[in-house]
Amino acid sequence: MVDTEKDTAAPEDQVHDLEAGIEHDVVEALAADDQGRLADLIRPLHHADIADLLERLNTEDRGQVIDLLRDDFDPEILTELDETVRDQVIDRIGVAEVVAAVQELDSDDALEVVEELDKDEQQQVLDAIPIGDRRRIEEGLSYPEDSAGRLMQREVVTVPTFWNVGQTIDYIRESADSSVENELPTQFYDLFVVDPLHKPVGTIPLSRILRSARHVPVTDIMEMEMKMLPVNTDQEDVAFVFRQRDLVSAPVVDDGGRLVGAITIDDVVDVIDEEHEEDIMLLGGVKEDDLYNATLDTTRARFGWLLINLVTAILASTVIGLFDATLEQMVALAVLMPIVASMGGNAGTQTLTVAVRALAMKELTPTNAARVIGKEALVGVFNGVLFAGLIGVVAWAWFGNPALGVVIGLAMIVNMIVAGLAGTTIPLVLERVGIDPAVASSVFLTTITDVVGFFVFLGLAALILF
Amino acid sequence: MVDTEKDTAAPEDQVHDLEAGIEHDVVEALAADDQGRLADLIRPLHHADIADLLERLNTEDRGQVIDLLRDDFDPEILTELDETVRDQVIDRIGVAEVVAAVQELDSDDALEVVEELDKDEQQQVLDAIPIGDRRRIEEGLSYPEDSAGRLMQREVVTVPTFWNVGQTIDYIRESADSSVENELPTQFYDLFVVDPLHKPVGTIPLSRILRSARHVPVTDIMEMEMKMLPVNTDQEDVAFVFRQRDLVSAPVVDDGGRLVGAITIDDVVDVIDEEHEEDIMLLGGVKEDDLYNATLDTTRARFGWLLINLVTAILASTVIGLFDATLEQMVALAVLMPIVASMGGNAGTQTLTVAVRALAMKELTPTNAARVIGKEALVGVFNGVLFAGLIGVVAWAWFGNPALGVVIGLAMIVNMIVAGLAGTTIPLVLERVGIDPAVASSVFLTTITDVVGFFVFLGLAALILF
Repeated sequence: MVDTEKDTAAPEDQVHDLEAGIEHDVVEALAADDQGRLADLIRPLHHADIADLLERLNTEDRGQVIDLLRDDFDPEILTELDETVRDQVIDRIGVAEVVAAVQELDSDDALEVVEELDKDEQQQVLDAIPIGDRRRIEEGLSYPEDSAGRLMQREVVTVPTFWNVGQTIDYIRESADSSVENELPTQFYDLFVVDPLHKPVGTIPLSRILRSARHVPVTDIMEMEMKMLPVNTDQEDVAFVFRQRDLVSAPVVDDGGRLVGAITIDDVVDVIDEEHEEDIMLLGGVKEDDLYNATLDTTRARFGWLLINLVTAILASTVIGLFDATLEQMVALAVLMPIVASMGGNAGTQTLTVAVRALAMKELTPTNAARVIGKEALVGVFNGVLFAGLIGVVAWAWFGNPALGVVIGLAMIVNMIVAGLAGTTIPLVLERVGIDPAVASSVFLTTITDVVGFFVFLGLAALILF
Repeated sequence: MVDTEKDTAAPEDQVHDLEAGIEHDVVEALAADDQGRLADLIRPLHHADIADLLERLNTEDRGQVIDLLRDDFDPEILTELDETVRDQVIDRIGVAEVVAAVQELDSDDALEVVEELDKDEQQQVLDAIPIGDRRRIEEGLSYPEDSAGRLMQREVVTVPTFWNVGQTIDYIRESADSSVENELPTQFYDLFVVDPLHKPVGTIPLSRILRSARHVPVTDIMEMEMKMLPVNTDQEDVAFVFRQRDLVSAPVVDDGGRLVGAITIDDVVDVIDEEHEEDIMLLGGVKEDDLYNATLDTTRARFGWLLINLVTAILASTVIGLFDATLEQMVALAVLMPIVASMGGNAGTQTLTVAVRALAMKELTPTNAARVIGKEALVGVFNGVLFAGLIGVVAWAWFGNPALGVVIGLAMIVNMIVAGLAGTTIPLVLERVGIDPAVASSVFLTTITDVVGFFVFLGLAALILF
């Protein structure tokens, strides 16, 4: 548990161990097939650094490093890996090693490893582990995906209401001493005071236990204003509560209000990263982070979104097709037409980004929705007028036709206002009907700004210029 | 410190207090100008909930609520507010109240409030607070923005190497008892063992102190493999270390390696949110989250990005202008031309999103860069061929011209490959030259996919069709 050698590097070098050239040296040792050097480089690394290293290597090198680590594989490595890479690692180390890992890990980490296995492997692992561990994992799997029940650790430290600080400390020391050490979680930050029905009545941060004299009753120092998370709480809501209240751990309760586990901040940080990743990927039109996926899987995953875009792009083109007679009369329209659509798309994306983020952070609510939409429409008016002036002058100068400048200016104003309205309204409506606003907003938005951009510009041209 | 009334609501209702209609009731009470009801609604709220409420109200209502809270204003509210809203709140409560707040808060929170004030107010506040607090804040302000020095708390609990667990616990109890209570941080999760030069030699999680018998020397249970953060470490790197190592707190050291403070996870979660927000906003072409900004400020902030887009859109249009003779001969080209550009833009955005995210998470490194670029080019080839077939058939059927189908198909393949290459190469190059890849990537990308899309499609048409 405690390292016997002190790391003597200067502090500056310690921020990212992996940056410091180790990655490069490992690749070199792999290329030279120098097993001795490889072992010297990798064995002293922290499990989190080994996980990072495995992620960055190519498949073949990764296999070699796993073979090297196989004999005493640190199960914590598995919990730090990206899913795609973890699958590969598990395939390589084999189910027997996973069985050993699952028994060593805390219940939340073990569940995280098992839940990602495919059905077959899951059954093999469950069949091979002791009944106690098996029950705990099966119970965890019974909760909905991405719920508090999946995130929580079953090991929690509870204290009855009639104890004092001294009794609490003695109890923790005894539990740590005895052979049933695994009853205590590896790390914990709060104690939970429970009533006889095992319902939480308060939490005590460890620092408050340490500040208090032995004779002080736990009920005197417990925090009663606490957030209890029902097992079915969505992980996004869990993250919201932790962030809002600056929590490091929180009690999880079942339908009867009884304490069944606790969620700690390290798992919540992973959730926050996951949710952010989801938002950013969906806005970018990618189903999931596919950095480590094979080329064909990536091609397939991205095809769907591009297909939708093809359909909407064809739709926008049919709008252009309506005005083919107009375009034949003046080719300048074809030259200028993408500018109006592009500006609308960009202005709309700006608004959309702010709205989607605000929805995710629960900052955009029914109370302020009308105000936000109104504001974005006004921003559209202001920027629309500014850019109408700019592009109007450019178009006039370019094609020597002032009327063309007026047409493109008017089209610009209309499309910018539409962009502001659509950029706020689309995600709000999607959220209302229960669709993740990040996933479908941009395709709707650019369809609208393209169609409106082409239609208004070419329509006004047909009306005014001929 | 301890609440005397138990919250008796069912657990399901406790996840978001504010969702439960309080926000709506507050707006109603404000409209009815019912001060009594308003006080009843707001006073029992947690400071984090009050902050959320203030953010969601409009400026006028916000002012009313602040006036209500003025008499006993909880300074913690300030630390939870968005910057724009905090400015308004500070203007309303006045500098005197800020002075009081700064003295009550932990050093990291006090610094956070002061650093956002404008120079004048900052000086007023610094002049009004006691010299000790003032020194601590001025020292904090001397560190670079967004550095570990700005994030850290100066209050840390340190233990000499020759103490045992019993001495440590007694020391903490005495510090809490004595009149100098503010020497201990309000909350702490780790103790730092320091040598006589005040250099950290190990950390001890509080749970490990509680597990151990009184006679155990601290050096026996301390964790020596720890990450020490130099004061100048960028907050993004701080977040990386916390995330990678699942830390709840970490020691901050000066150039001489001496302990000067500690960073706790709650501040790191804020950093993680901030960095994510920055990434998502920059990718969406917004300088910063401007949900709470005034309309004119928002218009101004978004203008710059749109102006760049106008210039690049005009650039793309000049490419179209090169082919005006070709377009005059066949108006179908004008109709189909946006499809090629749009598909390239979307495919490029997919790749770009994955690459920017991978760079931010330090998953994309020199070791795997060539592999990732190669893969994305291949994905471009595969999806390019698939969509070339689809759009080729559509164009043929639409305009009854098979050669037109061939032209648009070839242009599609070229633009999809270019999109894959540009989507990975642009952020890598920007990162290499020290520019945040999120900020400038999309404008470069869409310029390239538009220009290439128009040029290749119209160029091939000119070559093949006439």
